Amino acid sequence: KRITPATVLSTLPLPRPQVTHKYKEGHLLMICGSRRYAGGAILTALGARASGVGMLSIAVPESLKPILVSHLPEALIVGCPETQTGAIAQLQLPEKTDLSSFHAIACGPGLTKDATAIVQEVIASDRPLILDADALNILAQMGTIATLQKRQATTVLTPHTGEFQRLFPDMPDPKHDRVLAVREAAAQTRAVVLLKGARTAIASPQGLVWINPESTPALARGGSGDVLTGLLGGLLAQAATKQIAVEDIVATAAWWHSQAGILAAQERTELGVDAFTLTQYLMKVLSKPKVKSLL
Amino acid sequence: KRITPATVLSTLPLPRPQVTHKYKEGHLLMICGSRRYAGGAILTALGARASGVGMLSIAVPESLKPILVSHLPEALIVGCPETQTGAIAQLQLPEKTDLSSFHAIACGPGLTKDATAIVQEVIASDRPLILDADALNILAQMGTIATLQKRQATTVLTPHTGEFQRLFPDMPDPKHDRVLAVREAAAQTRAVVLLKGARTAIASPQGLVWINPESTPALARGGSGDVLTGLLGGLLAQAATKQIAVEDIVATAAWWHSQAGILAAQERTELGVDAFTLTQYLMKVLSKPKVKSLL
Amino acid sequence: KRITPATVLSTLPLPRPQVTHKYKEGHLLMICGSRRYAGGAILTALGARASGVGMLSIAVPESLKPILVSHLPEALIVGCPETQTGAIAQLQLPEKTDLSSFHAIACGPGLTKDATAIVQEVIASDRPLILDADALNILAQMGTIATLQKRQATTVLTPHTGEFQRLFPDMPDPKHDRVLAVREAAAQTRAVVLLKGARTAIASPQGLVWINPESTPALARGGSGDVLTGLLGGLLAQAATKQIAVEDIVATAAWWHSQAGILAAQERTELGVDAFTLTQYLMKVLSKPKVKSLL
Amino acid sequence: KRITPATVLSTLPLPRPQVTHKYKEGHLLMICGSRRYAGGAILTALGARASGVGMLSIAVPESLKPILVSHLPEALIVGCPETQTGAIAQLQLPEKTDLSSFHAIACGPGLTKDATAIVQEVIASDRPLILDADALNILAQMGTIATLQKRQATTVLTPHTGEFQRLFPDMPDPKHDRVLAVREAAAQTRAVVLLKGARTAIASPQGLVWINPESTPALARGGSGDVLTGLLGGLLAQAATKQIAVEDIVATAAWWHSQAGILAAQERTELGVDAFTLTQYLMKVLSKPKVKSLL
Repeated sequence: KRITPATVLSTLPLPRPQVTHKYKEGHLLMICGSRRYAGGAILTALGARASGVGMLSIAVPESLKPILVSHLPEALIVGCPETQTGAIAQLQLPEKTDLSSFHAIACGPGLTKDATAIVQEVIASDRPLILDADALNILAQMGTIATLQKRQATTVLTPHTGEFQRLFPDMPDPKHDRVLAVREAAAQTRAVVLLKGARTAIASPQGLVWINPESTPALARGGSGDVLTGLLGGLLAQAATKQIAVEDIVATAAWWHSQAGILAAQERTELGVDAFTLTQYLMKVLSKPKVKSLL
Repeated sequence: KRITPATVLSTLPLPRPQVTHKYKEGHLLMICGSRRYAGGAILTALGARASGVGMLSIAVPESLKPILVSHLPEALIVGCPETQTGAIAQLQLPEKTDLSSFHAIACGPGLTKDATAIVQEVIASDRPLILDADALNILAQMGTIATLQKRQATTVLTPHTGEFQRLFPDMPDPKHDRVLAVREAAAQTRAVVLLKGARTAIASPQGLVWINPESTPALARGGSGDVLTGLLGGLLAQAATKQIAVEDIVATAAWWHSQAGILAAQERTELGVDAFTLTQYLMKVLSKPKVKSLL
Repeated sequence: KRITPATVLSTLPLPRPQVTHKYKEGHLLMICGSRRYAGGAILTALGARASGVGMLSIAVPESLKPILVSHLPEALIVGCPETQTGAIAQLQLPEKTDLSSFHAIACGPGLTKDATAIVQEVIASDRPLILDADALNILAQMGTIATLQKRQATTVLTPHTGEFQRLFPDMPDPKHDRVLAVREAAAQTRAVVLLKGARTAIASPQGLVWINPESTPALARGGSGDVLTGLLGGLLAQAATKQIAVEDIVATAAWWHSQAGILAAQERTELGVDAFTLTQYLMKVLSKPKVKSLL
Repeated sequence: KRITPATVLSTLPLPRPQVTHKYKEGHLLMICGSRRYAGGAILTALGARASGVGMLSIAVPESLKPILVSHLPEALIVGCPETQTGAIAQLQLPEKTDLSSFHAIACGPGLTKDATAIVQEVIASDRPLILDADALNILAQMGTIATLQKRQATTVLTPHTGEFQRLFPDMPDPKHDRVLAVREAAAQTRAVVLLKGARTAIASPQGLVWINPESTPALARGGSGDVLTGLLGGLLAQAATKQIAVEDIVATAAWWHSQAGILAAQERTELGVDAFTLTQYLMKVLSKPKVKSLL
């Protein structure tokens, strides 16, 4: 299936119900960052901000807290104990909070492979979960298929080609047939799998495959993928109480992300779409007259 | 009574007198933030900035000082000693300053319940006072009605439904009849009470009730309320020497805050009104031709 | 004399010579800030940035260095040893640099009275010097008239009424006759004196008095004065090699500063001109078609 | 040869190939900054961001890491051990990374002369290399001509007149004949040499000389040159796999940088082009209708 504005917009959490409050509009827990890779947490969080999510909690190594507060004053920053290398050693939620407080968890950007314990913990949880970047590499080491088959809740994987190969060493090579590879991966893991690339492909465990037909090479920049993870996390958290297929939400996030890149490239050329700028264009996509008229 | 642009604009501190200086345009003391919840202090302060207040002093735990200076270089940041948990342990004003220097105090966002001492101190003062967030939870533990009846100066409470129930466990349930609940709360505490929600209700001790007829579910985001507290604090400080009923100022702040949300949602959809963005739209409300023509 | 756009624009360093380099376009040394009052250094520096000055060096207490670097990456931040109270203890310039490297010095915002030594040092120097805020209070303690009569180089004082009274306890009260007071102060100190207020008055030692006829009460906000000090410092540094009377440059800075306030108030109402916003409007004054056509 | 929009635009990495990824769009390593001169690293990095480079790694002294992360969340910040004076003591790349990971290296802004070891290391490497600022002063101490004749890979030097004289004490004085001086310097070093000034001149080892005919004295500000170094580094990294002469890329960077200054000066006057503002105008140059139609 091809993603179109119409299919996308039917899955966005719009319009909101007139009577609501922040916890009803989704609570996302992001788990991101390390002393070595700190910026990815900022970019992921700015992606989540743009999703409209009601509440955003961000678990980072304690030493990254000030920088996250400064960029995201509206978020609750959860400082976590650190390993010697500066990775998150364990999740340390505020008192009286546990993972059941969250409608979705987005985990991965900037973690490094030393954050194994926390990745194992969220995989073992019953929460809808997005795994990206180093969380995928840790999952690969745990054994992708065996590990994910034990999960009851929704899982979304967002690998690029290299990560896909590490996750699924025995699968058809995604460089040869992307659709075949992603469909097989989703079927065997019961996860929704988004394979990044010029034509992003998304497969559901039931065998449905979405293709994102439009994108731009302007997005071939460090940090672009982090923005997608945050945006997707925020949408997933908002959809928690609604009857929308997870793969449709993933397709919507992919479309929104690439449209922001396209719009930014139109205004700023293909050289002007660094990942920070990209976060500022997410909202502009929905404000375009053509899109707005469909909302 | 329904809030309208005309009723609102008659209470704004506009036009300013031609001859004035910064201390004549109100000095607000904000008491906000903790190591755990640092961002709320930023958002409250940005709300206060937008109010036009002449001088802004911000008491925060010492460790939050650099981040507040960076966001609000025009404010005087008062670093305070911290409890072991990172809350404000006590108010430590600069030499030769005491609470009588301030025209109003806004207290609450991000404090945690460990900031009991400072909340008790400001409640015991003779300054016009806004209590929000954890300051309300601390007030509830002190005994809301008995405590507030001892105050001589103006008090404003800004609870959401959950906080209202903790403050007034023996009152009519605000979920059933918001107007009844808020009127009763104001009458018994002699405070102006603003009950947050889709239709914000404001009651004066004399029994007058304002309803804010327009709002937007886009404001159902973490941090939205902090912005209101700062905006209201700034307006209250500016009104200190004027003959304007406190409940009218509270109504004005509620209207201004929700109109900023509405305007932002029109331009950015209901997903685009994170609390930081909201602070940037406050000024735009007054700059709208329709509003400006009334000023 | 009344300041008009035409008189002002004839003193601006425009157009620049086609062949020049950064050190020919003025090198300003700012001496500002303390741990207690850190934001004033940022605002002063943003004022100096807007002046167009070729090189900007900013001496601050060592602990303020990161925040200044972040806001002003183009400036050279000189971290200085601190007193126990967090004031600058002494000026510590980089190797092979001394005060003769600078075309002007602007000293005062946020210093606290504990920065006495550095204020004495710059007063004793042969550099054009602007004293503001706590530098004025320190000067008052040194004995204003006796101290300044020993200076050979240009001095500019920028007191508000209270500071004026501390500087000149034996002079006519500026509240009664501003022009008389400021003229007398300039004559006795051989400094150019700018007295802040709704109608800012500027006097030269020779008895010339400029009045800034237009301003806005929107500027009655904390930090507004810091912006003026930086702007004036930058203009003074750029004029170092030119034949322009110092009082004319001071008048130009006062006009530019107040016009920025007026323009911001037109767009954002009188409540919308916090000191940070003011810094962003300085450039817009010169870009207005009516002004630009005169440049 | 005179640089024109047509010659320039033929060397820009536009349009990008439809199928690509971030590592194919160039990986630049910047080596910049010291505790004393920290802001230059930010400005250089913002220049590199504007170039469109796929991946940006920034080596700075460990203590500068937080500030770089905050400004450039999309970059990989490599914290390095520091000398006692706060310079980079040695390059400490992440595990499994060495200099061969990078398509180009830009080295110099803010280093101080204490960063000798790292400058020697990159000169000894086989990577395309830009040397600026203190890296040029260190090179001069090493012996410019003898040192560079040993390099196999591309070298670009970007001195202003003073640095040129230190690099080439025995050459014709660039103040007398810029073209002669720069051509001779390039011939003897086999480097591309860009001599900054009102009419920037660029020479290739083969004797080709480019002149940048248009510039603006508005660029005579601290930090302008840092922006050029970053922009040039990013373009060089993107060109690594293409058949474009290095001197043409250098000419393109010089044109782009000066056009950004010209555009900013048109909108903001010649006083409005501080180096930070300049970084924000780089993208606007390519978005101008006249330029865009050529892309």
